[in-house]
Amino acid sequence: MNELTMNLRTDSRIPLYEQIYRYIRSDIRNGKIPYGEKLPSTRALARYLEVSRSTVELAYEQLLSEGYIESEPYRGFYVAQIEGLYYIQKERSEPEKEEEKGTGYSYDFTPNGVDLKGFPYNVWRKLSKEILMDDKTELFRSGDSKGEYSFRRALCNYLYQARGVNCIPEQIVVGAGSDYILMLLSIVLGKDYRIAFENPVYKQAYRLISSLGYETVPISLDKSGMKVTELAASDADIAYVTPSHQYPTGIVMPVKRRMELLKWAGRKENRYIIEDDYDSEFRYKGKPIPALQGYDGAGKVIYLGTFSKSIAPAIRLSYMVLPESLLKIYNQSGKFIHSTVSKVDQCIVQRFIEDGYYERHLNKMRAMYKSRHDVLIEELKPLMNSCRISGEHAGVHLLLTFRDGRSEKELIERAKERGIKVYGLSDYRIQNIEDEEATILLGYANLTEIQIREAVKILISCWN
Amino acid sequence: MNELTMNLRTDSRIPLYEQIYRYIRSDIRNGKIPYGEKLPSTRALARYLEVSRSTVELAYEQLLSEGYIESEPYRGFYVAQIEGLYYIQKERSEPEKEEEKGTGYSYDFTPNGVDLKGFPYNVWRKLSKEILMDDKTELFRSGDSKGEYSFRRALCNYLYQARGVNCIPEQIVVGAGSDYILMLLSIVLGKDYRIAFENPVYKQAYRLISSLGYETVPISLDKSGMKVTELAASDADIAYVTPSHQYPTGIVMPVKRRMELLKWAGRKENRYIIEDDYDSEFRYKGKPIPALQGYDGAGKVIYLGTFSKSIAPAIRLSYMVLPESLLKIYNQSGKFIHSTVSKVDQCIVQRFIEDGYYERHLNKMRAMYKSRHDVLIEELKPLMNSCRISGEHAGVHLLLTFRDGRSEKELIERAKERGIKVYGLSDYRIQNIEDEEATILLGYANLTEIQIREAVKILISCWN
Repeated sequence: MNELTMNLRTDSRIPLYEQIYRYIRSDIRNGKIPYGEKLPSTRALARYLEVSRSTVELAYEQLLSEGYIESEPYRGFYVAQIEGLYYIQKERSEPEKEEEKGTGYSYDFTPNGVDLKGFPYNVWRKLSKEILMDDKTELFRSGDSKGEYSFRRALCNYLYQARGVNCIPEQIVVGAGSDYILMLLSIVLGKDYRIAFENPVYKQAYRLISSLGYETVPISLDKSGMKVTELAASDADIAYVTPSHQYPTGIVMPVKRRMELLKWAGRKENRYIIEDDYDSEFRYKGKPIPALQGYDGAGKVIYLGTFSKSIAPAIRLSYMVLPESLLKIYNQSGKFIHSTVSKVDQCIVQRFIEDGYYERHLNKMRAMYKSRHDVLIEELKPLMNSCRISGEHAGVHLLLTFRDGRSEKELIERAKERGIKVYGLSDYRIQNIEDEEATILLGYANLTEIQIREAVKILISCWN
Repeated sequence: MNELTMNLRTDSRIPLYEQIYRYIRSDIRNGKIPYGEKLPSTRALARYLEVSRSTVELAYEQLLSEGYIESEPYRGFYVAQIEGLYYIQKERSEPEKEEEKGTGYSYDFTPNGVDLKGFPYNVWRKLSKEILMDDKTELFRSGDSKGEYSFRRALCNYLYQARGVNCIPEQIVVGAGSDYILMLLSIVLGKDYRIAFENPVYKQAYRLISSLGYETVPISLDKSGMKVTELAASDADIAYVTPSHQYPTGIVMPVKRRMELLKWAGRKENRYIIEDDYDSEFRYKGKPIPALQGYDGAGKVIYLGTFSKSIAPAIRLSYMVLPESLLKIYNQSGKFIHSTVSKVDQCIVQRFIEDGYYERHLNKMRAMYKSRHDVLIEELKPLMNSCRISGEHAGVHLLLTFRDGRSEKELIERAKERGIKVYGLSDYRIQNIEDEEATILLGYANLTEIQIREAVKILISCWN
């Protein structure tokens, strides 16, 4: 073949060998150098291009390793058959689809907010960098389907100290988000269960369980949470509860009710309690009550937890703690399912917990949320003639119940007219009750203290 | 209160403010400084400790932000109520559970291997670092439940160019691994389908679909893949196929059979084909046949793909391409389920594809696997009197069928005695057939060329 003509640029940030590699690759791809053609020797091409021989060798090595050329011992380099090779052209850059909300709201009191200004970016970067430091093939190999053992051990220790959960790492199964954990749990449980839900309810879990084909039973609440008498009168086998902070009412289930629930579960062999502890992390008054799981001596509680609320929604990391009986079934019929969480993410969160960052992060977020909580309650005082506050001791939202006969719809509509988004409790009810009191949810995780002051002033002016 | 006595170390790598913070935190935690106690002013403590005032201020700020102390305007800093604060002690370091395999095998011809020495560590680190560079809150906010739009667009472009898949980004749903994708698909489909599987079969998918409660139907293969006449005679509604490289037989389904399959699906409204294209990336002979999905004009094909085989098993990233009719159902009943893949991972893989790294990686891996493939076939020549090779044109394993009446069990046992692990085809059959020919699977992704030469020499000596 003729000498390869190429216009090398010594002023480019692309190294010379890479430029040579790209020239030849492009000539092979578009057929200028056909299959079977011999390439010039590295020595000859180096002389011709006035570069060092090792530069050409590097380029040829690259072409060789990607299958564009083949080497024949003592004869030289030849263009290979390239039919099977990948050549992916970059698409013309289409403008990114703008999905601007443009809802017209100036303030959004969403009860599902997580403040991301508090996200520990520096620590995350540092840990991520350290974990990817070495070429650890182990990190990219298929992992334990329950999640890495060392991560589950760190989790187990955290759960014991922070939540009073009594378990061994073997009982923990890690998964990518709470929705997935419920899907996996349903494979372990099978479909022959009727599942009771609190009403009003955490809709995401209720919807997921329903879409998995389970029959569900709504159970109403009193001031201690799910009514166990109503539960016992139903034909439910599993009770799905949020005892540390009922969503959305904010009720913290007292120890007595927890014991009644456990007793209900103990009465039949196939009864279980799903304890969803998803936002137990933030509590502003008194000592936290240990998880229901910690009181369970009979292996009746399936404990669910997540890092989506306490670190960030995009951290896809949740887990369940299975009681002995279900662990056995999981080991037989669920363990073959591959883990959904990358080992890198598991390592980052493990170090985050073990090196004390998680403790500091939680305390920092709690302090931040508490200040907002205090400001919100302070600012709401002028409304206290017409309504009462509840569910304010934990989580990142509270409830305002109006006693003046106005409807939720009217209250929400009035706020909307002034650019403020608030949420009605009836959206969380499985069945709507007639003549219920109008109750508004105010979440404060996504608003600064200043925004809370501004927004509540407007709310008062439009509600009073 | 008395002055705080602490032994600061200027030679420590822990900054002074952090040392002060830790001393005070520890004194508050263990009750030495009780609730309500006033802390010395920053000025006084700085003078006493002989450090700058800003150092003490930093320490107090830290304590304040984590809720250990409270500031009262014009009065100073007081110890806060710490009941609700997190204090997670590091567990005594338990020895890591050694799960050494210790199987006694010197060579393992697993057909499920992925070579990780070819993993692009440098690029991965670089992309990961660049993506985490800025404090982008967007990166940690809850994302699109289908996966990020820009990632799905890059995927769409890749699938069109490399696999001939015809779709728009809206049809793609991303998830953490193929098992999860099947779980999600089952929520979209509902349970009223009978699913036909190739026999022998890719067991992971078969097992997962079964454990989701579906009725399954095994359909036998001829040399073109799943027998469509047998499929048509069955009562199956969905055919699960691996046309680009049938697992485990290695059959590449010819275009004619693909058309017959599509025709079968077209005959009834609720029939679908699940095309699992999970290891289509490596092909050593001739031009790749485009995906079945590319021939589908009637919206009958559900296309499944993954990065676990082509990049690394621990990259938990798979996807499905839904036809119009199922996309509608997904949008109604599956879209509420949160994505299982972190945005960071989606960003890394998107850049990996768009910046040309994926193309280069695929070509490199293909060249590496092809060399091993060539060595294996070369080394197996002495066995060609007693057996024949099949399924060798793609993927990372081939099959050896013995015509000398020996059983699979005997062949596997003999190899085992010499420290070599090989796999029998009968393990992949849904029902075993009597008098079937003994067929051994040899995977070469986890063995170097030298190891292949060594291991095959031993196999020949024990099988001949």
